[in-house]
Amino acid sequence: MPQRVLSTELPAHVGEKVLLHGWVHRRRTLKNVSFLIVRDRAGLAQVVIPEPAHAPEETAVTVVGTVVANPVAPSGVEVVNPVVDQVGAAETPPFELFRPELRVGLATQLDTAPLAYRHPGRRKALEVAAAATRGFRSALERQGFTEIFTPKLVAAATESGANVFPVDYFGRPAYLAQSPQFYKQLMVGVFERVFEVGPVFRAEPSDTGRHLAQYTSLDAELGFVEDHRDVMAVVRDAVAGMVDAAPVPGPEVPAEIPSIHFPDALRVADASPDEPDLSPSDERALGEWARREHGSDFLFVTGYPMAKRPFYTHPDPAEPRWSNSFDLLFRGVELVTGGQRLHRYADYVAALEARGEPLDPYRSYIDAFRYGMPPHGGFALGLERFVSRLLGLSNVREATPFPRDRTRLEP
Amino acid sequence: MPQRVLSTELPAHVGEKVLLHGWVHRRRTLKNVSFLIVRDRAGLAQVVIPEPAHAPEETAVTVVGTVVANPVAPSGVEVVNPVVDQVGAAETPPFELFRPELRVGLATQLDTAPLAYRHPGRRKALEVAAAATRGFRSALERQGFTEIFTPKLVAAATESGANVFPVDYFGRPAYLAQSPQFYKQLMVGVFERVFEVGPVFRAEPSDTGRHLAQYTSLDAELGFVEDHRDVMAVVRDAVAGMVDAAPVPGPEVPAEIPSIHFPDALRVADASPDEPDLSPSDERALGEWARREHGSDFLFVTGYPMAKRPFYTHPDPAEPRWSNSFDLLFRGVELVTGGQRLHRYADYVAALEARGEPLDPYRSYIDAFRYGMPPHGGFALGLERFVSRLLGLSNVREATPFPRDRTRLEP
Repeated sequence: MPQRVLSTELPAHVGEKVLLHGWVHRRRTLKNVSFLIVRDRAGLAQVVIPEPAHAPEETAVTVVGTVVANPVAPSGVEVVNPVVDQVGAAETPPFELFRPELRVGLATQLDTAPLAYRHPGRRKALEVAAAATRGFRSALERQGFTEIFTPKLVAAATESGANVFPVDYFGRPAYLAQSPQFYKQLMVGVFERVFEVGPVFRAEPSDTGRHLAQYTSLDAELGFVEDHRDVMAVVRDAVAGMVDAAPVPGPEVPAEIPSIHFPDALRVADASPDEPDLSPSDERALGEWARREHGSDFLFVTGYPMAKRPFYTHPDPAEPRWSNSFDLLFRGVELVTGGQRLHRYADYVAALEARGEPLDPYRSYIDAFRYGMPPHGGFALGLERFVSRLLGLSNVREATPFPRDRTRLEP
Repeated sequence: MPQRVLSTELPAHVGEKVLLHGWVHRRRTLKNVSFLIVRDRAGLAQVVIPEPAHAPEETAVTVVGTVVANPVAPSGVEVVNPVVDQVGAAETPPFELFRPELRVGLATQLDTAPLAYRHPGRRKALEVAAAATRGFRSALERQGFTEIFTPKLVAAATESGANVFPVDYFGRPAYLAQSPQFYKQLMVGVFERVFEVGPVFRAEPSDTGRHLAQYTSLDAELGFVEDHRDVMAVVRDAVAGMVDAAPVPGPEVPAEIPSIHFPDALRVADASPDEPDLSPSDERALGEWARREHGSDFLFVTGYPMAKRPFYTHPDPAEPRWSNSFDLLFRGVELVTGGQRLHRYADYVAALEARGEPLDPYRSYIDAFRYGMPPHGGFALGLERFVSRLLGLSNVREATPFPRDRTRLEP
């Protein structure tokens, strides 16, 4: 048996007998000859057969044949005199995967995800997700970050309280973790700089194109920071690593991403100065402003009001009404949230008491701050949101093969 | 402010003023001078201060001082004339982290994990976990595998039925995924070769040193295989990648790992030929045999009885009582389970019916096999188990910072 080659490698094997693996992407039967377009993980290959092609599209095939140059074939080569072995039979698919666009609605695509994602255009989103994640990890590992693996089952519905999934944990109540926030902070004490790529769970009752009940969170946290600006510098490098790694043309990530302080952001968005947060339309306005004023697809908004940020947020020492936190907007949509955290035990006790929160559910978390936690901060980025913004997808469900939402639990 | 350097970089900065970040690992007060041993993410640095050291161990500090050569200092250098800034106060820790061994039981270590894992010996396990995971990914990416992210919330308690965690999913019953098995198989249709690193959940009521309720599963699946031996070749490379990446001396991974067929394995282990599975003591005996006969820490056992393998397992075509599956034993303990899977729709229907299983809960899974699935197979490896075997840890709980088991849900 000859060595397997990928479709994209065929031009280097003209005159040789090769083995191809893949799927019948498309059949074209002419008068005296037929073409099988075979799709493998790298691309498409044209295979010439003397008889009509009977196997339906999506049949898994193994082809042994000879590579010949043919200037009119798609990549300048084709495979002739083939022996085609149908190693995986297919029924006729319910839609045509060889069309440039899938002519079927999103709900049907998701119902038939294992099939629909074979479409090269749809598959692209998942390729980008994989590559961007690799770029994220590489950027952080270059800067001395260590990967961690933290629990997804937790004892208390802390942090944001609502929107958690209850789990029956050996007869006891438990919850699915909404983020690795507490754990990554604690691990700063061990490794200084940590990251995690993993699922997080939000029982979001909303059905928008921006929300998922499970998504992949790219998290990082680092110690010995001056303030949130040290975190923002890491965000910049992580996002640049993701954009660079993605196999699609991407935006330029400025060496220093422009930033705007929250009250100024309200002004730019023409919102009331009393607003405690930015609305989606404010964010869009800021995205346009960043493009116009700074030529940037990215914009940091810093200093969100403490009242709207979680209890572990570090205030701005100069003006404690504002926080040392930030969001990164990408083309007018929030992509990253982060900031400096409290690092003193007494500050945690005070922050929880000020919010009328009991300390007990947080005990194993805040106790760790008794033993020398440095000033630190971090951020979180939703992978599916990044991919959908980068590719201009209208729904975050197109950036994950098996999305989970209020109504969808299958496939 | 001078540039921050890591403790391990100090020898390259003799004569320079540097900035160190870290924790007071140990204090030693002599008559006229004191030493602060500062621990950072890379190692230890000796800092000489003129007065007694008051800050407790584990205080987070920032040190600016001058590097001088001192042949009797631990790494040949020390930092003198320092300005020490206590950036994170510490209470006196409940145990001494500077001892070569932590003198405290496992339960206390796990209760105080954020502190206990600062011990360099304990931290090592987590460093190995991170590095081995990187090695796993690199080995597979080099072979054309694509990373996937699959749901951890599933509609049906399939695959092994028992030992699942029920979740209240927007008022509907759901379950935590015990493995990405079905999803990784389906994604073979999209990418041919896929891997995933993620949490899996087992409601194991057992309290052994080998089981966790959540662990990190390293999964891979590939299409267009001849049989399980193609999968074993990938396992070999993935495990070699993990061992090579780990920052500890590791075993040699033979270019071809020896393998033994199941009935022969029973004979070697001196077990009854009617046994349907290998016991832990059988596995230990086989580990010793592999060491003795093949000089290998690794041994594949192939062809486990079909009756003991999951319904999606592909039988041995020559002798369908045996399966095209395998386990990889590492030093006498099962480390990897894998094999060839069924790939024809009709075979799935027949396999489920033969086991008296209803088809409905499997519908969205088996339906995907209607559309051209190639012969394929894959494997799964438990990260914590790998780390604990590699380091000779007696309990898998020492290989994850925040283990979950029947009684432990915190921190």
